[in-house]
Amino acid sequence: MTARLVAVYHVRTDAASIETRAQAIAVEQSVEMPLDAIEEPDVLRDIVGEVQAIEPIADGIFAVRVGLAPATIGSDAAQMLNMLFGNTSLHDDVVLHDIVLPPALAATFGGPGHGIAGLRSRLGAERRALTCSALKPQGLSPERLGALAEQFARGALDYIKDDHGLADQDYSRFADRIRACVAGIARAREATGHPTRYVPSLSGDLNAMRRQLASACAQGIDCAMVAPMIAGFANIQALRREYPDIALFAHPSLGGAARIAPELLIGRLFPLIGADAVIFPNFGGRFGYSPETCRALADNARTPPDGQRPSLPVPAGGMTVQRVPELLDFYGPDAMLLIGGNLLSARTQLTEASAAFTRAVAAHQYRVRSWT
Amino acid sequence: MTARLVAVYHVRTDAASIETRAQAIAVEQSVEMPLDAIEEPDVLRDIVGEVQAIEPIADGIFAVRVGLAPATIGSDAAQMLNMLFGNTSLHDDVVLHDIVLPPALAATFGGPGHGIAGLRSRLGAERRALTCSALKPQGLSPERLGALAEQFARGALDYIKDDHGLADQDYSRFADRIRACVAGIARAREATGHPTRYVPSLSGDLNAMRRQLASACAQGIDCAMVAPMIAGFANIQALRREYPDIALFAHPSLGGAARIAPELLIGRLFPLIGADAVIFPNFGGRFGYSPETCRALADNARTPPDGQRPSLPVPAGGMTVQRVPELLDFYGPDAMLLIGGNLLSARTQLTEASAAFTRAVAAHQYRVRSWT
Repeated sequence: MTARLVAVYHVRTDAASIETRAQAIAVEQSVEMPLDAIEEPDVLRDIVGEVQAIEPIADGIFAVRVGLAPATIGSDAAQMLNMLFGNTSLHDDVVLHDIVLPPALAATFGGPGHGIAGLRSRLGAERRALTCSALKPQGLSPERLGALAEQFARGALDYIKDDHGLADQDYSRFADRIRACVAGIARAREATGHPTRYVPSLSGDLNAMRRQLASACAQGIDCAMVAPMIAGFANIQALRREYPDIALFAHPSLGGAARIAPELLIGRLFPLIGADAVIFPNFGGRFGYSPETCRALADNARTPPDGQRPSLPVPAGGMTVQRVPELLDFYGPDAMLLIGGNLLSARTQLTEASAAFTRAVAAHQYRVRSWT
Repeated sequence: MTARLVAVYHVRTDAASIETRAQAIAVEQSVEMPLDAIEEPDVLRDIVGEVQAIEPIADGIFAVRVGLAPATIGSDAAQMLNMLFGNTSLHDDVVLHDIVLPPALAATFGGPGHGIAGLRSRLGAERRALTCSALKPQGLSPERLGALAEQFARGALDYIKDDHGLADQDYSRFADRIRACVAGIARAREATGHPTRYVPSLSGDLNAMRRQLASACAQGIDCAMVAPMIAGFANIQALRREYPDIALFAHPSLGGAARIAPELLIGRLFPLIGADAVIFPNFGGRFGYSPETCRALADNARTPPDGQRPSLPVPAGGMTVQRVPELLDFYGPDAMLLIGGNLLSARTQLTEASAAFTRAVAAHQYRVRSWT
């Protein structure tokens, strides 16, 4: 029998009920029917989820380890999500907290195709933290976005990504936007000598994303952003397979809604299906993730237990240039800081604000010994 | 200016904070940057989300109506989800509770292609409630699944669907399963004269789902099941466009995890993107939805406010044949009852149990006047 995929659920219930509840989850996430109606001994032995451990972790909260059969998943990343949390997501007393992948299953998904090293080598930045900003707001014309991209890039940012709301809208078609942003950044690169990269956001069904990626590739782009919870895990895997030269940034859109621990969903699962960089809401900004969650998420992304390439954590969301030293001490150099609105607020001084950001990152002296 | 798409959020906060919080949501779900850094008057006027109303609805809970610009969505169903709840899903104080669609946007998505009438006409059942069961467990061979399908169908069930865990696994390839189940049901149809339909579950990326659907069509299948939260909304729309003859059943897998009200997500959004039938966890079974949630969900599916075809509610999850009268009185005849495990528990008497189920539905005398 092959090794199980272990799902760790945190279940809110009382001590008298936890064994029954744990067993119900193991059944729900596998055969989903009364066990005494199953006639086949090999289904009972090889397919039914097995409760491997139950451990109280807080008052009325238990950690439940359930072994699931990798055979039910095959090589389909969407099916992995289905088997890990499909129906159990409909119960509000359970959080999917962690997973332990058998090596063969991890190898099937492959993880980041480029990872931290690939994102660094594109920039020739081997040790320092990387910098990123976002093209906003929604509603701008391709020309305005291209001008913004140029202003950002003149400040020598490493990566300039689309806002995740930019799709293929009437007021700014994907193809036109790409062309304008590539041109704007090319002008800036000539001036700065810095190999700033553009990261367009892909949207729509798999075919639309493919068409977008093909047109991006034709213009020399080697990075793209996707939102796995919107696009569907299986489609991210398809893009990873079909466009191996593209480094994938994962956006967390719709990700916090799921009752899947962010350090698992964003820190483990997004990299597992191919995210070279994972964008997530930083603590102390517009979102409510705690420093502990952010640290666990970043550590998960950078130190995959499955022998895959490390993925780059990209804290974002209401961050300011002022916080750069604090954030670098917190995350260390294997991170990319993404500052959007705070730079855009500089308006006509956008390039200067971007340059101040990139200088602050380059000049930072780490106060945390382990980073130096 | 075109009419706005209205999103109604339920926000948990205090009276002193709600205006600021509501405005922050309107910004987050549109331009996602400080408004005073936006230079373009038409972006401020046409694109930025506008708080239309704030209403206290319970102690510390407010309903916030935000008008979003349809231009940010275009015709992309995935982008609709992104703009309705992408980043706001990352905040744990907000539930997406309801939407009001401008007619043009609703028409863009199209809703069910067949709806209740189409699901009835396939069966020649014009007034009574419909019946459904599920092929389980995971891990059976195609032959065993085909034999199960035949036993079910000999009880004259209307629809027999795959368990949503059945994908394209080594132990039961999609193509082999389809062939076996179609053959099993065909034998039963010959015996019963009842036009039982098989509803295979589609899985994988868009291309895989397409291949599966093409092979199903080639065998005369005219229904399929999809899980929109796993597959991605845009891919469901692609299938709806490309396979207009297929009636689509939506499975709620991963749907309850989102902090989107089930009556909205399953009852409105799944039909909007093309679900002819929506499967959902019934009250009093294995799942925690309340009778009120189930009623609102069913009513939403059946009475779309957008002029689209009504979608058939399919309560499921731990239901028993014993509960048929109660459930029919609750849901009325415009519903399909889905009973899986309870029938499968009859083991060698599966056909008899299925027949008892279909007879109970056919013979039911409604105690609720409005249904008769």
